Amino acid sequence: MIDLRSDTVTRPDDRMREASANAEVGDDVYREDPTVNELETRAAELLGKEAALFHPTGTMANQVAVRTHTEHGQEVLCERESHVVKWELGGMAQLSGLQVRTVDGDGRGVITAEQVREGHVAEDLHRPGTGLLCLENTHNSKGGAAIAPETIEATAEAAHELDVPVHLDGARLFNAAAALDVPASRIVEPVDSAMFSLSKGLGAPVGSMLVGSEAFVERARRNRKLLGGGMRQAGVIGAPGLLALEEENRARLTEDHENASRLAAGLDGIEGLSAPEPETNVVLVRTGGADYTAEEFLDVCESEGVLGVPFDENLVRFCTHRDVTDNDVERAIETVETVLSG
Amino acid sequence: MIDLRSDTVTRPDDRMREASANAEVGDDVYREDPTVNELETRAAELLGKEAALFHPTGTMANQVAVRTHTEHGQEVLCERESHVVKWELGGMAQLSGLQVRTVDGDGRGVITAEQVREGHVAEDLHRPGTGLLCLENTHNSKGGAAIAPETIEATAEAAHELDVPVHLDGARLFNAAAALDVPASRIVEPVDSAMFSLSKGLGAPVGSMLVGSEAFVERARRNRKLLGGGMRQAGVIGAPGLLALEEENRARLTEDHENASRLAAGLDGIEGLSAPEPETNVVLVRTGGADYTAEEFLDVCESEGVLGVPFDENLVRFCTHRDVTDNDVERAIETVETVLSG
Amino acid sequence: MIDLRSDTVTRPDDRMREASANAEVGDDVYREDPTVNELETRAAELLGKEAALFHPTGTMANQVAVRTHTEHGQEVLCERESHVVKWELGGMAQLSGLQVRTVDGDGRGVITAEQVREGHVAEDLHRPGTGLLCLENTHNSKGGAAIAPETIEATAEAAHELDVPVHLDGARLFNAAAALDVPASRIVEPVDSAMFSLSKGLGAPVGSMLVGSEAFVERARRNRKLLGGGMRQAGVIGAPGLLALEEENRARLTEDHENASRLAAGLDGIEGLSAPEPETNVVLVRTGGADYTAEEFLDVCESEGVLGVPFDENLVRFCTHRDVTDNDVERAIETVETVLSG
Amino acid sequence: MIDLRSDTVTRPDDRMREASANAEVGDDVYREDPTVNELETRAAELLGKEAALFHPTGTMANQVAVRTHTEHGQEVLCERESHVVKWELGGMAQLSGLQVRTVDGDGRGVITAEQVREGHVAEDLHRPGTGLLCLENTHNSKGGAAIAPETIEATAEAAHELDVPVHLDGARLFNAAAALDVPASRIVEPVDSAMFSLSKGLGAPVGSMLVGSEAFVERARRNRKLLGGGMRQAGVIGAPGLLALEEENRARLTEDHENASRLAAGLDGIEGLSAPEPETNVVLVRTGGADYTAEEFLDVCESEGVLGVPFDENLVRFCTHRDVTDNDVERAIETVETVLSG
Repeated sequence: MIDLRSDTVTRPDDRMREASANAEVGDDVYREDPTVNELETRAAELLGKEAALFHPTGTMANQVAVRTHTEHGQEVLCERESHVVKWELGGMAQLSGLQVRTVDGDGRGVITAEQVREGHVAEDLHRPGTGLLCLENTHNSKGGAAIAPETIEATAEAAHELDVPVHLDGARLFNAAAALDVPASRIVEPVDSAMFSLSKGLGAPVGSMLVGSEAFVERARRNRKLLGGGMRQAGVIGAPGLLALEEENRARLTEDHENASRLAAGLDGIEGLSAPEPETNVVLVRTGGADYTAEEFLDVCESEGVLGVPFDENLVRFCTHRDVTDNDVERAIETVETVLSG
Repeated sequence: MIDLRSDTVTRPDDRMREASANAEVGDDVYREDPTVNELETRAAELLGKEAALFHPTGTMANQVAVRTHTEHGQEVLCERESHVVKWELGGMAQLSGLQVRTVDGDGRGVITAEQVREGHVAEDLHRPGTGLLCLENTHNSKGGAAIAPETIEATAEAAHELDVPVHLDGARLFNAAAALDVPASRIVEPVDSAMFSLSKGLGAPVGSMLVGSEAFVERARRNRKLLGGGMRQAGVIGAPGLLALEEENRARLTEDHENASRLAAGLDGIEGLSAPEPETNVVLVRTGGADYTAEEFLDVCESEGVLGVPFDENLVRFCTHRDVTDNDVERAIETVETVLSG
Repeated sequence: MIDLRSDTVTRPDDRMREASANAEVGDDVYREDPTVNELETRAAELLGKEAALFHPTGTMANQVAVRTHTEHGQEVLCERESHVVKWELGGMAQLSGLQVRTVDGDGRGVITAEQVREGHVAEDLHRPGTGLLCLENTHNSKGGAAIAPETIEATAEAAHELDVPVHLDGARLFNAAAALDVPASRIVEPVDSAMFSLSKGLGAPVGSMLVGSEAFVERARRNRKLLGGGMRQAGVIGAPGLLALEEENRARLTEDHENASRLAAGLDGIEGLSAPEPETNVVLVRTGGADYTAEEFLDVCESEGVLGVPFDENLVRFCTHRDVTDNDVERAIETVETVLSG
Repeated sequence: MIDLRSDTVTRPDDRMREASANAEVGDDVYREDPTVNELETRAAELLGKEAALFHPTGTMANQVAVRTHTEHGQEVLCERESHVVKWELGGMAQLSGLQVRTVDGDGRGVITAEQVREGHVAEDLHRPGTGLLCLENTHNSKGGAAIAPETIEATAEAAHELDVPVHLDGARLFNAAAALDVPASRIVEPVDSAMFSLSKGLGAPVGSMLVGSEAFVERARRNRKLLGGGMRQAGVIGAPGLLALEEENRARLTEDHENASRLAAGLDGIEGLSAPEPETNVVLVRTGGADYTAEEFLDVCESEGVLGVPFDENLVRFCTHRDVTDNDVERAIETVETVLSG
């Protein structure tokens, strides 16, 4: 099987497994797990923020961030197709009583400063005030678009001028950094908090980090406890996380991007499919020209050993990652070609 | 003062006041207020639904309806500029844990069947299912557009095919009925529940009605209690409500529409203002051509005795109603003309 | 029918009806209803607080108060049998995400300072902090016990020392004042906010007042809007409320207390029943000695023209009020006697 | 340091670390982690339930269970000192809109069938219905009392007769089973769902299991996702969990109980302290007779190398576990003795 469903499917390598086995651990609820403490320190340094907090998942880190920035009953401004709106079970409303106000980003999911000013709502007798702006980088639903720091900066500045804090859902932040060839810290510099996943392209088995100011992380710790994220000897999963943050491992993401690029080019050359050049590791393939819906297309692919996920009636997502080789990409293209000509 | 801020400012007339004074009353929490019971029966009949429930406000009736149709954590599909999203303090999220998914209606606030199908979300592991479609008629933010029953029907049908119930915010439902010259029952026929205000154009001092099936209203009664809407001798305000529902009173709304039409024409003829022909009693005036923002324009108007509300940077709303005469309209136009030439 | 179910069943008298008919009104959402404004001023004065806010019901006033004092996720300390816990559909948790911590008051529903200190929870990583103490006076479930200002004071002081604000559910506050022969302002002096009903013993058809500091009432106004309590020409029901607050009307409550006292004495003298001397207008009758459950007992009473409500398996509540005469009390006792001997 | 603060501080042993390093893993959100699947199958078998679900923490498993059994706005019946009420940040109210109704269990935290019937509330216009009964075994705040299956059965039966489901917080379920010498499946037989921790006495680094019917676990999976508990290659922590469930490891808990017993006897013999014979691994020590508060006592202990936690003004909890030896217990007693005589 060539598993292109998501970069979440990566399995920890031997070094990570060994690190897990040898991790020095303690009870992280008491803040006594040295490995988790080191991981949090490292993540904060790397992103240029005061503090960091380890979470079992990115969904939790996002929901904790949103909750920590806002008051129950405010509005949160988000791109319409963002993960936090689309794939987190309405958690902002369900768990934190927040009304989403969506902005239609451009084709790459960029929200402009102007859109922030237009979407902003001042609190009054009839209206909840805007309590938070959420950005996403890379933007998953828009094919992994890597949004430049200057763009983030302009948007965040507009929010800050309105006294609205900014959270960045950077589940694939290091893909953005690699694609743009800037430090991740540069991307998150203009925002108040950011989340990134250790368990996607970086290859750790479990976990996501939330970074921000010390005061923010202190409050986030309590919200993490509320949602049930206060794990005990979490160093067992923190140790592979530390390896995931090593420079070579972060640099390695460009290989996934190159693979994605070759995959897109190959698929785009097939009659009935179109796949624009990807910016990072997410390949969106439109099956509209073929006589297949996304679901039907994926069913045949699966029977031939290639896995992807449907994104829409005629849209399929393939994701490259650490466990997908150059050779896998070639084979995937050939398989799809055979399938469609069959 | 010519008060064109809203049709909510109407004062009860002598017949209403007398009705209030002579109302036969009881404890409505025990369902023993004969006047409220009569009002509920009358409202249900008039709208062709099984049952009705009296509420102190339209906001409460909307929030009760939304809550009664859904389960905590679902999505509600709404027009982006609808009252329930824009002016009710995010109550759907705050009170009922519902995530709003907004649809950009056309210039008149119409959501199409196609948009319902596109906006619909099937419940799965990552996504809250769509639990409700909310429509609004007349659509306040879109200048009181009166949406035809056939249009409502097509949209509601699309929702029903997806097993999604439909609520209609008909705060100004009888304005729509008067403008379209159809019975209100025809407009709400395709929807599962509808709210309308007694205290806007119909002129009652307090109250809104929620109509739907008996089972729906039974559950709504409990949610009304939760929000604090279980009043005692409510017949005192129910009695004017009954008069508000009389045929002549409903028919009278066409006068407001004619006044609105004359007001729009008059204002549109003034240099620097533009005001499209209104469909009902809501006049939207764009001040963009004048050297005024909406706020500045309204300040000067107020100093000359004409009141309206700002809707946007350069957009003003004037609303005609029972307490605004033909003469008031003439004077309002003259006043604005003088103001702008001054 | 002699209706002793509740003092909520009182019907407005002719003066109140006339006041309603003649009320000067405006749009109270714009704060332009002169009658409501006068009522709020009067209520604030009478209770010695800075400001007051009119609500359609006492349940809404309580829920608004609780919400306004707290942050989502805190704890509220309440007497176990208090109205806000027992009869308001779990609104504190449902609407405001608050965890109730109940204290077992004594036989009269008094919470001691010691119990406040014991029940108080300091906010930490695992525990929601205590955000509010709720008291009730008179205490409905404990037979209308009228709790003395000194007692309230001691309890409230304990809360204040812990930086916990205090709300008093005084639905029947003026019954307490009448029974204790102190001004109502003396009773609410030690608390931060208080609610009282116009529609119970005071006889107005609809409405309750919430009093507190100006800042508190300002925030409460927004929460009232959220719950759907922002009524329009509310002076129609505000006018009878003003009469309800007149001195003679408040003084009249002692008659209800005397009637309650005679009723209790009469019922207690009947074989199989026991009814302690009431402190105000609430008579609790235990049917344990008779071969009746509360429900069965009430069924027979009803068939003979006397109404009450069940409070428990063997406990019945009768409530005296403005529409119950001396003669009604005699007849009620005779009826019950006949019923039980029959 | 002899760390008696909690059995959560245990560190994974070499076998567990090795299991972690060698675990076969996959993406558990796709349900493809073979180790987690095996762990869930094993947990379900062991407890005699249809299915099980792995969670990062016991708090999450409890909150997911509560949420899955109930509807927003119901009541949950709990022992007053239970973990879910006391130590989970009011999550039932905050996250799920549930009102807690507490029952005062006896000295061991047992809720009787009679108390269930008394505390049960039937849903009506004013009252939220009781949606769930929560039990705890062993009962942490009551000194680790191990409640017998027959007792659980009687209580659960009372709930079931009222159509109320029952959840058991069995964070230390296997301590109860070991102490009572019954299979854990016997204890949870009468309840609809149960949670137990892998990371307490059983010694795994991270994780708790929730067991119940297949339908229940299916719905729970979605709520786990909502709270952010859908981890990826969770087999890394699932593998030590499988070892934690081995028979010898479960049987080993009796050693902790013997240590606790010796610790209690030793401390009880010291002037100024009293410590009743523990039922499992939790030792409660009252410092009332000494001139120390709990905090002061613990400070001195800590300076001499013995750690515990304060439970109350004069109450300290010591907890024995896998990383505490016979010798540690002797030394702890001697240290305390020296401290108090010093």
